[in-house]
Amino acid sequence: MRTRIDVDLEKGTSVRTDLDESALWIGGRALADSILFQEVPPACHPLGTRNLLVFAPGLFAGTPMPTASRMSVAGKSPLTGGIKESNVGGMAGMILAQLGIGGVVIRGISSGGHPKLLHLGKRSVELMEVPELHRLGNYQTVESLKNRFGNEVVILSIGPCGEMNMSAATIAVTDGNGRPCRHAGRGGLGGVMGSKGLKAIVIDPKGSQLRKGADPGAFAEAIKEYTKILKSSKRTAFWQENGTAGLVDVSHARGSLPTRNFTSGAYDKKDRVNAERLKALAAQRKGMMGHACMRGCVVRCSNVFNNPQGRYLTSGLEYETIAMMGPNLDIDDLDTIAQMDFHCDDYGIDTIETGATIGVLSETDLFGFGDRERAIQLIHEIGKGTVLGRVLGQGVTTTGKVFGITRIPAVKGQSFAAHEARSLKGLGVTYATSPQGADHTAGFVAEEPFSREGHTERSRNAQINVALADSLGLCQFTGLRDDYDLFALLIAALTGKGPSAEQVRQIGREALLKERSFNQAAGIGPGQDRLPEFMRSEVLPPNNSAFDVQDEDLDRVFSDYPS
Amino acid sequence: MRTRIDVDLEKGTSVRTDLDESALWIGGRALADSILFQEVPPACHPLGTRNLLVFAPGLFAGTPMPTASRMSVAGKSPLTGGIKESNVGGMAGMILAQLGIGGVVIRGISSGGHPKLLHLGKRSVELMEVPELHRLGNYQTVESLKNRFGNEVVILSIGPCGEMNMSAATIAVTDGNGRPCRHAGRGGLGGVMGSKGLKAIVIDPKGSQLRKGADPGAFAEAIKEYTKILKSSKRTAFWQENGTAGLVDVSHARGSLPTRNFTSGAYDKKDRVNAERLKALAAQRKGMMGHACMRGCVVRCSNVFNNPQGRYLTSGLEYETIAMMGPNLDIDDLDTIAQMDFHCDDYGIDTIETGATIGVLSETDLFGFGDRERAIQLIHEIGKGTVLGRVLGQGVTTTGKVFGITRIPAVKGQSFAAHEARSLKGLGVTYATSPQGADHTAGFVAEEPFSREGHTERSRNAQINVALADSLGLCQFTGLRDDYDLFALLIAALTGKGPSAEQVRQIGREALLKERSFNQAAGIGPGQDRLPEFMRSEVLPPNNSAFDVQDEDLDRVFSDYPS
Repeated sequence: MRTRIDVDLEKGTSVRTDLDESALWIGGRALADSILFQEVPPACHPLGTRNLLVFAPGLFAGTPMPTASRMSVAGKSPLTGGIKESNVGGMAGMILAQLGIGGVVIRGISSGGHPKLLHLGKRSVELMEVPELHRLGNYQTVESLKNRFGNEVVILSIGPCGEMNMSAATIAVTDGNGRPCRHAGRGGLGGVMGSKGLKAIVIDPKGSQLRKGADPGAFAEAIKEYTKILKSSKRTAFWQENGTAGLVDVSHARGSLPTRNFTSGAYDKKDRVNAERLKALAAQRKGMMGHACMRGCVVRCSNVFNNPQGRYLTSGLEYETIAMMGPNLDIDDLDTIAQMDFHCDDYGIDTIETGATIGVLSETDLFGFGDRERAIQLIHEIGKGTVLGRVLGQGVTTTGKVFGITRIPAVKGQSFAAHEARSLKGLGVTYATSPQGADHTAGFVAEEPFSREGHTERSRNAQINVALADSLGLCQFTGLRDDYDLFALLIAALTGKGPSAEQVRQIGREALLKERSFNQAAGIGPGQDRLPEFMRSEVLPPNNSAFDVQDEDLDRVFSDYPS
Repeated sequence: MRTRIDVDLEKGTSVRTDLDESALWIGGRALADSILFQEVPPACHPLGTRNLLVFAPGLFAGTPMPTASRMSVAGKSPLTGGIKESNVGGMAGMILAQLGIGGVVIRGISSGGHPKLLHLGKRSVELMEVPELHRLGNYQTVESLKNRFGNEVVILSIGPCGEMNMSAATIAVTDGNGRPCRHAGRGGLGGVMGSKGLKAIVIDPKGSQLRKGADPGAFAEAIKEYTKILKSSKRTAFWQENGTAGLVDVSHARGSLPTRNFTSGAYDKKDRVNAERLKALAAQRKGMMGHACMRGCVVRCSNVFNNPQGRYLTSGLEYETIAMMGPNLDIDDLDTIAQMDFHCDDYGIDTIETGATIGVLSETDLFGFGDRERAIQLIHEIGKGTVLGRVLGQGVTTTGKVFGITRIPAVKGQSFAAHEARSLKGLGVTYATSPQGADHTAGFVAEEPFSREGHTERSRNAQINVALADSLGLCQFTGLRDDYDLFALLIAALTGKGPSAEQVRQIGREALLKERSFNQAAGIGPGQDRLPEFMRSEVLPPNNSAFDVQDEDLDRVFSDYPS
């Protein structure tokens, strides 16, 4: 039986209870949504005392299934004003699950003025004050905590951006190498953690046990089948070889690579920032491709990026960061982008949102395309919390508002990711309608990218299947989507209670519906299911396409929501 | 027949048409709402090309009726993201109506880079470039335009804040003395005007004619009756003697005077900023009480405030400004408040929103209560458009977001006015549910201020009656509310077509409903019909009352909307 840990920071208390039996098949996003839906007043202030911050490993987390130990971090978002699930890799989901923990719920706001640390062990839950960590970056925070608690601990932490309640602040999670380089990046949940006065969570893996399932034999068999699919997939080989950076060439060719503040979908200097360049630098500087963010992953899409002296600079220099801070800012240099990535990881701010934000700043005299030094300087402004930095740290929508800019690549307050909706219209439907705001992981649709028709169902199905994957703990790079029968088999062997394929689909379907309902009660009406105007009025080179999916087709994603 | 002037700034063209006959009984707010509802896509960007800016004199404007020539300024608001009607006195409504103009509709965004001027005459409509007015304050703008076009013209203008697209920017209207001291203050319509590249509208009164009505004799008779009511009212005498500043003592006594960033409802130093003090200074410095903002007003609630040297400093030093920049910032000095008012009027920024904004800034180290110099300095930051000024110029909600502050006295992005909802719960219901965001003029309810019950109907009726008054051009200080029979009489004599009392009520009822529908299509759901959390969790001294009207009672304002 998985347990749930409730921590009340205001009272300084914690309770450990068994997870509700009705939650047998749900974990991750579905579990987090369910907790938020039942326990958070939708109209509450995201940074106020009534919001919750939930950590929920996916249902399969901590089992021998590879690439299936992701974790959901969730709460009401200060960025979108709606519900937010930010899905993250790294080691936290796996180890929490192996300690028997299905969910950690943080409530209240800590008193006393000093940042707090939550220490979780197999049987212990402890809160302590850590004044020495105040405003430290994630790297120093993790170093300090490992010195104190040992190298084996897994750490969740926020940097100064989270402590400053920024709407684009992240929560860092240590990877298999103990580095704080995986991030629950989107939606500002780092700001929620900061608002509660919680600086870090240390998870002591002592006593953790692999979850072998209610029927270990059947589970091992099913896992074999699952792993075979993963290992034989061409996509797995692509990610392993190129990492997500492989998407630079793909997006450029498709015309969906955000370039110079979303004014082009292709980048003339893309060869300087693509996977080939990344691989060459990795070979030259003894960096690494095919790096795993969590133990046992068979996809291994991550990397380690070293500086010209061959010393570690950053890890997980991912496509989204490369595109949003490279082509989108006309910065054609991986070393600059890697430094920006490092500082964002260290300060704890979303690289996607920040890249979009600096992009729109090109409409002012505060940033000019291609200005590498200024780009890095702006990230320092954010991390140090100058007035300008405070603005940028709220993300692209607030920054646009402050500077009177109307051309803002965002939906529901959250910036687009590095995939142009005008050359990927199905994804545009997801950007417009997802309860998560513009989010490429909320339901990627690559089929018939230029068609205006047929995306309603594709986007809806993708959103449902992604909500399911996020609930199961599956990485989206497994490539599994609507493999309900296989999932049913795995769930039955793990839990001892077999859902039907249809019941499996309902996990995703109902999670999405709860998110939608939460948002409506929070005051986000269907009228917000729209892309920004310029996506319709400006055509995007080189395809010269505009976003032309009809409003009625956007509205049908949820108004015709199938049972 | 009233005419409508449509100006397309993008094309540089204008058209004059007769107002739709079906609009016979509607003017002001109802007319503006109707135009916005039909012609503005609700999801458009408020500062984008598809938003409209509408000027519509009330139905009675330009007639011999005193205190009845107010004007509606309307558009989609950059502050609230919803529909906005900002009602303003001064001379524009009267003179436009006397030129036969029932509405001016501005569309598109001017090209060419230079600010534009719209010149309206009896038969002429002209657009011209005014590069020399770029970033000038309203006072200099008006001076320059009077030098060019003569002292008799009526001028609508924006200051630098409007030119910078700020969400709290105002549109100034000249008063009977030709000073730009009446403002369409709320909701940032100055930012909309700025986004269109329109700096000012000059109205040449040549050829203007008093509107004597379809049945002049009956109209004159009805006006006599109306004027008698106004003149015999005790309230009229109160406003004439004290101006709106008379409310300082009233609010203090009721415990509804926002003090030190909404932490108290009474101000220990209120005697230094109340009407008695204002009257003493007016007498001493040869200022003026009982000043009329428009010709012929019988209420004359305004004033002229001179500096210690006896020279004009500002006009219309009103209660809202005094309270929000005085007690709310712990500034106990009318001279400082008057300077703040002058600079806000000159830069063109809402004094209510700005007072609330500086108030929440007291939670940072950027402002300390009682710091007179700093308060004035902050207004200069806004007017000059420094980064901090840009933040503050977006109003209290964006400022709170940027600095991670949760205790924000605002609804739907717009700050409370100078009336505490915890000591005026009926007004709290209006703040929460009005499509206009928190707005004291959207339906003031003073009955049973501490009761949690019975406000749903009171607020709804007040909102409907105010929408009616705003449509007729009536100043709220006429004290007339549901005098439908008298209004029907007046309308019949003016237009020659007599509505029933019920039809008169429908003018207000339908206007409000259109606003609500527009907002829903703009994505503002009923979940936003809530006061900020601290109004429920913090009790307000000296009454020690919290806002405790139930959510269901808030929801019923519109869910049970009567026919």
